[in-house]
Parts: sequence; structure tokens; C-alpha cells
Amino acid sequence: MSEEQRAALDARLRSVTFDTSRAPGELREAFETMTAGRPVPPGVAFAPAVLGGRPALAVEPEEVGTEGRILYFHGGAWVVGSPDTAQALTAGLVHRTGVRAVSLDYRLAPEHPFPAAIEDCLAAYRDLLDQGVPAERIVLAGDSAGGGLTVTTMLAARDAGLPLPAGAVAFSPALDATRSGESMKTKAGIDPMFTSESLGQLLAHYVAGEDPWHPFLSPAVSADLGGLPPLLLQVGSNEVLLDDSTRLATRAAAAGVDVVLDVTADVPHVFQSAAGFLDEADAALDRAGRFILDHVSRN
Amino acid sequence: MSEEQRAALDARLRSVTFDTSRAPGELREAFETMTAGRPVPPGVAFAPAVLGGRPALAVEPEEVGTEGRILYFHGGAWVVGSPDTAQALTAGLVHRTGVRAVSLDYRLAPEHPFPAAIEDCLAAYRDLLDQGVPAERIVLAGDSAGGGLTVTTMLAARDAGLPLPAGAVAFSPALDATRSGESMKTKAGIDPMFTSESLGQLLAHYVAGEDPWHPFLSPAVSADLGGLPPLLLQVGSNEVLLDDSTRLATRAAAAGVDVVLDVTADVPHVFQSAAGFLDEADAALDRAGRFILDHVSRN
Repeated sequence: MSEEQRAALDARLRSVTFDTSRAPGELREAFETMTAGRPVPPGVAFAPAVLGGRPALAVEPEEVGTEGRILYFHGGAWVVGSPDTAQALTAGLVHRTGVRAVSLDYRLAPEHPFPAAIEDCLAAYRDLLDQGVPAERIVLAGDSAGGGLTVTTMLAARDAGLPLPAGAVAFSPALDATRSGESMKTKAGIDPMFTSESLGQLLAHYVAGEDPWHPFLSPAVSADLGGLPPLLLQVGSNEVLLDDSTRLATRAAAAGVDVVLDVTADVPHVFQSAAGFLDEADAALDRAGRFILDHVSRN
Repeated sequence: MSEEQRAALDARLRSVTFDTSRAPGELREAFETMTAGRPVPPGVAFAPAVLGGRPALAVEPEEVGTEGRILYFHGGAWVVGSPDTAQALTAGLVHRTGVRAVSLDYRLAPEHPFPAAIEDCLAAYRDLLDQGVPAERIVLAGDSAGGGLTVTTMLAARDAGLPLPAGAVAFSPALDATRSGESMKTKAGIDPMFTSESLGQLLAHYVAGEDPWHPFLSPAVSADLGGLPPLLLQVGSNEVLLDDSTRLATRAAAAGVDVVLDVTADVPHVFQSAAGFLDEADAALDRAGRFILDHVSRN
């Protein structure tokens, strides 16, 4: 759509020095600064909540259009971020769908390495089920590390014998701690935010000595994806993480899973967070909203 | 959606003996019988036309909702089929979008092997441009071999320096004459219609001694896809042709192309032609219609 908008976003991201070798506390502060002030669509209210014993943020439409629940997992490489830093994304989905969301403040690394975040996400999902929200009316959603958590939480739910949600939406999901995708090399320099090296520095806090080939650390390369509900994976073509999505989609399709891989050209990691000033971001959130409505109201 | 509907479709396809070793004339008759009687949505009119010097079928909505043109290429392994055998698909798109379509009767193999079909498709596209239809209001669409032709026609148009269409929709496209995808093996037996061997028999008529690795015979593995407009690839997970789509999507994304890979679980080749009695088929055509409208009206 707008070449100028894409160029401006790329330049803005390149001007931010997000030194991944810094201490987690400094990284968290820098990420909060980076995400603050993103426009939040009107008609959406935020309220503190608790889910599965963890703090959370309820994100509510002015008027509920469709019964259901979006369970959201924020991004931040499992090290930084919170429901607050993902407000533009959660509100963007709630605004478009009229479906209530709850955004989870799962435990972060290095204080709580793998699999703490997955445990928290699974507990939150289980709590929703225990509250009587039917599984087929829940859609998981998340960005970056949180996109990865949508997939690994479903794998954990499947392995625990729980009913699975109606589907999952993942924005630029991180699905491969081995960083073995070709895009780690082919998109180096094209990606304005990350390199394989900087991702490796962040991932080390979460992986914390575990085998990176563990299926819950690298579902795009190691997990048995059979039985998962429909997936929507949105990713930009200017990402070293591109092949996390292309490989998960390919393996999901091979396993007989409904999957949509939705690639937007010439945009960076979690470009959806630029909604309001990047046409591609709004269009992608529109498609994500349609996917959510198609699935929470399907049964 | 409906497990019973999918099982019924699978059983029906397995009951049809489509012996690919038969002579082209017999194959054409069998394909006409197979596709006859498919329900066509109401409010769509068919009329003979000529495009690029070839016979064609105009498929017109009762009322034009959006200006633009769908240029459709029917399926049939480059050997069988015609605009008549694709009526359920073209009418399904026209009915959903209110956009006029024209379905091309391109030359078939073995009488006219590769690249005759691509030449005809390119001539038809050029004719539309010459008639004054703006490129950004044209979407190419096709199924199976015709899905392959949407991609190769755009490559030929790009190489000829023509303005490119707004996008392309491909249902279960055939994009790899080398048949080197893993799904050729992993989906053998799961695919109720084709095996690598039967596809090889059909492809031999079209390839006719050319190198199957030619980028216009195997764009999923050999073509430079840079500069292509947005693509929607829809495919079933029960297809030996599944990896034609997953690999084209992966390579398109790597080349910085907007691409949506849309995989429906547990359905066969060109399942969209079962619209009216398979919920997944109608849902897929709905998504294809939205993609067409999003792109013909974008500029």
C-alpha cells in the first residue's frame, strides 16, 4: 500500500538502539518506552484482572458484539513486555471484533525461564475453561514470543487432554529457538530490528541451558502439530523470523491442520503494532479480526 | 466443519476411476462427465466471448457490484477441461464478488504442449489491457493447472514488461512439473484423486520433452518470483500437490511478495468445486471472494 509509510517505519525502527546485550531490567524499560504512546482505538476499556493466578488485563469492547474470548499473550522475547506494552494490539482486535480479550502477564525470563511462561499460559486457559467459557469460543492470540506461546500452549493443552480452543492468531511468532531458518541469513540487514545474534542473546535468557530443539522451544522444526485447531500466522517479509512461520505452516499443513500463512511484503516484525499509521497494519488486523469472528462463532 | 461431508466427498472421488493412461479424448469426456451437474449459484449469466483470439466464456453477475475483471484459467492438467467444466468455480466467485469474469479456453496438450497455454493466457491478459481494463482492476484466478497458469502468466507478463494484475487466486495450483515435493510421498493414498505417477502421466503431455525444471513448468521450485502482485493460494491438506503451494508461498515470501497460503484440513484437490454440499468449499470461496474484492478495489 503505502511505500512511504513502510519506509518511515523501517527508518524509525533502525533509529532505535535496542541493545540486546543489556540487562533484562534495562531492556524492559527500553521496550516500555518503545511501545508507549501507540494509538489505541476508541471504545475499548482496560481493567486489571487475574487469570490462572497471574495478573492480567481485561480488554473490553464498549458493546460485546460476539460472545467469546480472546486470550492474548504479549510479545517481548519471553524477557520483556507486559499486557500494557501490547495494548495497541489487543485493543485493535477487540475494536474490530467486539469480542472481549484478556491479556496475560505471564512470568518472564531470566527470573523464570522455560517452561514457566507456558505453564502460566496453560493455567490461564484452564482458568477460562473452569469459568465456563467454552473452548470453542476461545481464540488464543499473541505477538512474537507471545505468538509462539499460542502454539506451545495449545500443544501443552492437547497433551494435557484439554479441549482445544477454536483457533489461534499469531503475529510474527517466534517458533524456533534453534534459529535454523534460512531467513536468519537471507533477511539479515533487511530486518530493521533483529539479527540471528541479537535474537540469540535474548533467547538465551529463556532457553537457559535447555535443548533448543525441544518441541516446546522450537515447534516450527520439532513439534508434532497433529490435532491443532485452525491457525492464522501473520508475518512480514522483512523479518529474520519469517521462516519460523513458513516452516510451521508447512508442517501444520502436512499434519492436516487448517492453517493460513499470511505474509505482508516489505514490513518488519509485528508490523501490526503500527496500526493507525501503516495501512498494511490495519489491513492485517482486519484480516485477523475476520479470522477470530469466523472461528469463535463457528459452532 | 462437517466431517460427514468431507468423508462423503472423499468416498465419491475414490469411486470415480479416472484412468490417466487413457487417450486425451477419452480423458476429456470423462472430465466433462465428472464436472457436469455441479450446482451453479443463481444470478450469474454465461455468454460466449473471444479473448486474445481464443474462445472464452463471459461470466456475468446480475448486477455489477465492483468494477474489475476476474480472468479465469480452468483446471485439467493442461490436457482436459474448458470454461464449461469450471462453471461452478467461476460463477461461485462472480456470485460472491459482483465482479465480472472471463474464463479462457486456452489451447490444450498434447496437441499444443508447453508453452502454448501460457501464450494464450498472456494474450488474453494483454487483450484485456488493450480493451482499457486497468491492470490494477484485474485479478487472475484458476484451479489446478489453471492455478499454475495464474502464476506463470504473471511471470510472463512481468518478463514482457506489462503492468501486473492486482493479484491472483489459485485453487490447488499445479506448480511443479518435477513432482519433487515431499507431499508427493506423504500424501500418497491420502489424496483420493492423484498419485505422483498419475500426475506424471498427465504432465507428460504438456511437458513434452522440455526440461521439467524450467521456471515456467516448475515455478514453485525454480522461478524468480520477485515483483509478483499479491497471491492467494488455497489448497487441501489431502493433496499430493500440497507442497506445490507451501513451497511457492515460502519462496514468494522470501522474495518479498504479499502471499496468503490458505490450507484447509482433510479436503482434496480443488475442494472448492464441491461448494453447495461441502461447508469448507463455500467458506474457502468466501475468503477468495474477499481477497478479490480487497484487491480489485484497492487502488
